[in-house]
Amino acid sequence: MAREFNDVAATLQSIRYTRGSLQLLDQRKLPLETTYLEIRDSTDGWNAIRDMVVRGAPAIAIAAALSLAVEVFNLDGFNGSAGEAVSFLQNKLEYLVSSRPTAVNLSDAAKKLKEVVSNAAATTSEGRSVFQAFIEASEVMLEDDVASNRAIGSYGATCIQQQTEKQKLSLLTHCNTGSLATAGYGTALGVIRALHSGGVLERAYCTETRPFNQGSRLTAYELVHEKIPATLIADSAAAALMKSGSVDAVVVGADRVASNGDTANKIGTYSVALSAKFHNVPFYVAAPLTSVDLSLSSGQEIVIEERSPKELLNARGGLGEQVAASGISVWNPAFDVTPANLISGIITDKGVITKTSAGDAFDIKAFVQKTG
Amino acid sequence: MAREFNDVAATLQSIRYTRGSLQLLDQRKLPLETTYLEIRDSTDGWNAIRDMVVRGAPAIAIAAALSLAVEVFNLDGFNGSAGEAVSFLQNKLEYLVSSRPTAVNLSDAAKKLKEVVSNAAATTSEGRSVFQAFIEASEVMLEDDVASNRAIGSYGATCIQQQTEKQKLSLLTHCNTGSLATAGYGTALGVIRALHSGGVLERAYCTETRPFNQGSRLTAYELVHEKIPATLIADSAAAALMKSGSVDAVVVGADRVASNGDTANKIGTYSVALSAKFHNVPFYVAAPLTSVDLSLSSGQEIVIEERSPKELLNARGGLGEQVAASGISVWNPAFDVTPANLISGIITDKGVITKTSAGDAFDIKAFVQKTG
Repeated sequence: MAREFNDVAATLQSIRYTRGSLQLLDQRKLPLETTYLEIRDSTDGWNAIRDMVVRGAPAIAIAAALSLAVEVFNLDGFNGSAGEAVSFLQNKLEYLVSSRPTAVNLSDAAKKLKEVVSNAAATTSEGRSVFQAFIEASEVMLEDDVASNRAIGSYGATCIQQQTEKQKLSLLTHCNTGSLATAGYGTALGVIRALHSGGVLERAYCTETRPFNQGSRLTAYELVHEKIPATLIADSAAAALMKSGSVDAVVVGADRVASNGDTANKIGTYSVALSAKFHNVPFYVAAPLTSVDLSLSSGQEIVIEERSPKELLNARGGLGEQVAASGISVWNPAFDVTPANLISGIITDKGVITKTSAGDAFDIKAFVQKTG
Repeated sequence: MAREFNDVAATLQSIRYTRGSLQLLDQRKLPLETTYLEIRDSTDGWNAIRDMVVRGAPAIAIAAALSLAVEVFNLDGFNGSAGEAVSFLQNKLEYLVSSRPTAVNLSDAAKKLKEVVSNAAATTSEGRSVFQAFIEASEVMLEDDVASNRAIGSYGATCIQQQTEKQKLSLLTHCNTGSLATAGYGTALGVIRALHSGGVLERAYCTETRPFNQGSRLTAYELVHEKIPATLIADSAAAALMKSGSVDAVVVGADRVASNGDTANKIGTYSVALSAKFHNVPFYVAAPLTSVDLSLSSGQEIVIEERSPKELLNARGGLGEQVAASGISVWNPAFDVTPANLISGIITDKGVITKTSAGDAFDIKAFVQKTG
């Protein structure tokens, strides 16, 4: 019997998987079309990653692993030895990594799966048993990512509700951190999902998220899809919205969190955090604990990558018609860093990291030691 | 001999006028094409205003008046009485007001010009003398607007330089307040022009100004046109830019200033003001003193108009292809209100209004009495 994964009824699924079958939501066509692509083997997986059918660091690694899991599950004619299975899988994993060579999650995942495969071969001479071990390890990656996000959602919803006596809460989020960026459920958007399914969400506000419009294209799509009451605003309207009293809390994702709590996230996050501080609106970061980089003492060590000027000069993230005046220079940072003193709490899959009683600082090292 | 108006060599001209001849820069085609439309009479003027060839409250009123001035200057066959000239002009003015019935500046200007015409008829029996009075009054409107903007630029540049010991300054502005929104030169952009022509401008930063992109389309166009060193940023990147130390002052325009200094301006202004406050960057409002509405005690009395959701849902300000997810609600306020406590000074054509020595308040009534 095929096992069902990622089977949350209401949640949008970017990865549809049952053993032997994989479909990926074609994110290139969003928000105008909702189309799933059938992924039958690692070649289909490689193409889907290279062509941006799937995006978001955890989602890419999981889609790659599952594409190969589907391939070997359906490999009827294979009767090789454990050693033959190992070299088959390791070659395919190297091939899959070449679809996005700079994606650290993808190469990390391939490395771990190669170990799983080697270890399995040490206990069996059957090639199919090695395949079975690989399939199960790939499925665990999917389960773990969704479980991690659900834990973030649950911890976040509880924490945010405890800060207020209001019955219904409205939250603002920035960028896309939902089912479309993860294997399912999402981080910051997972917190909003959890509040909604708990019946305490009044309304979600999502920013457009210029210049790539992840908010208006992807987050808005997820919110509409799941019938969560939601309103889209221009990034620059967030401050006015908070002034009107319509926002009870802000929750955003993180690309990287330094050991002092400084957080790198999509450009514009810092601006929202400043507005939240001024209006006494709690500001939360939601991310798996693996996003914390304890080797960074503060956000000053995070180098901010700049993206193409075309994203501001032309429509559709740089692909569409010209919008801006010819000849204008552009500064287009991908991220900004929100300092820890603007952050009320960091919601992780292991619990919420709050400020030390001594003052305005997070002690993330202590939290990692306690929960790890 | 034809008199030349608005003849600043380097400044972009949205209104090109010499007596008997009027051309308007077709702003619908910006930033991709720079085309001037010949305006021969009030019918051409009516169409240009209705079809958004010209925009910005002062520019619309002046373009209307000048279109009629050109018409009567070239009316060779007219030998009517003063009374006939009065009724000709008054009918045409009423017709021009109907091109944009809600534009207060336009109807105010028409009212004043009707008085000019009536007064002229009281001193002459010659129709052509009444026409002459009308032409001169229209030209004075153009001259006064440009002179007012140049005064704002001069007062603003002096004030901003006095606040710092730096030799070169970088300024950030929001929306479009330049030659394209006024009869010429501009208000906030006029201050930037004045700093540039004084040799003290390091760089101008302009925000994209979502959702209608006045910054990336119009301000960027003006800055490139005049070879002012300039960089375009996403609205949401303003805070990160200030954190990097690249902004020495912010200067923005105003739609309306309440008597306590609270200022209504394009959505996003408030967000920029909050970032400026946090980073100790001086934040200036630049507007003619006529933008002050002493009947409003504070910004709370200013009603914020909402604009079409389409501006966020579709490209090109709502006219282009769909961008956002179908079915998402939108909150699209046209303006926000920046409270006086975030404003360092209000730069007017009569001088800079600064805070009273007592504290954090502006005494605009006293300033108006002193300068009026």
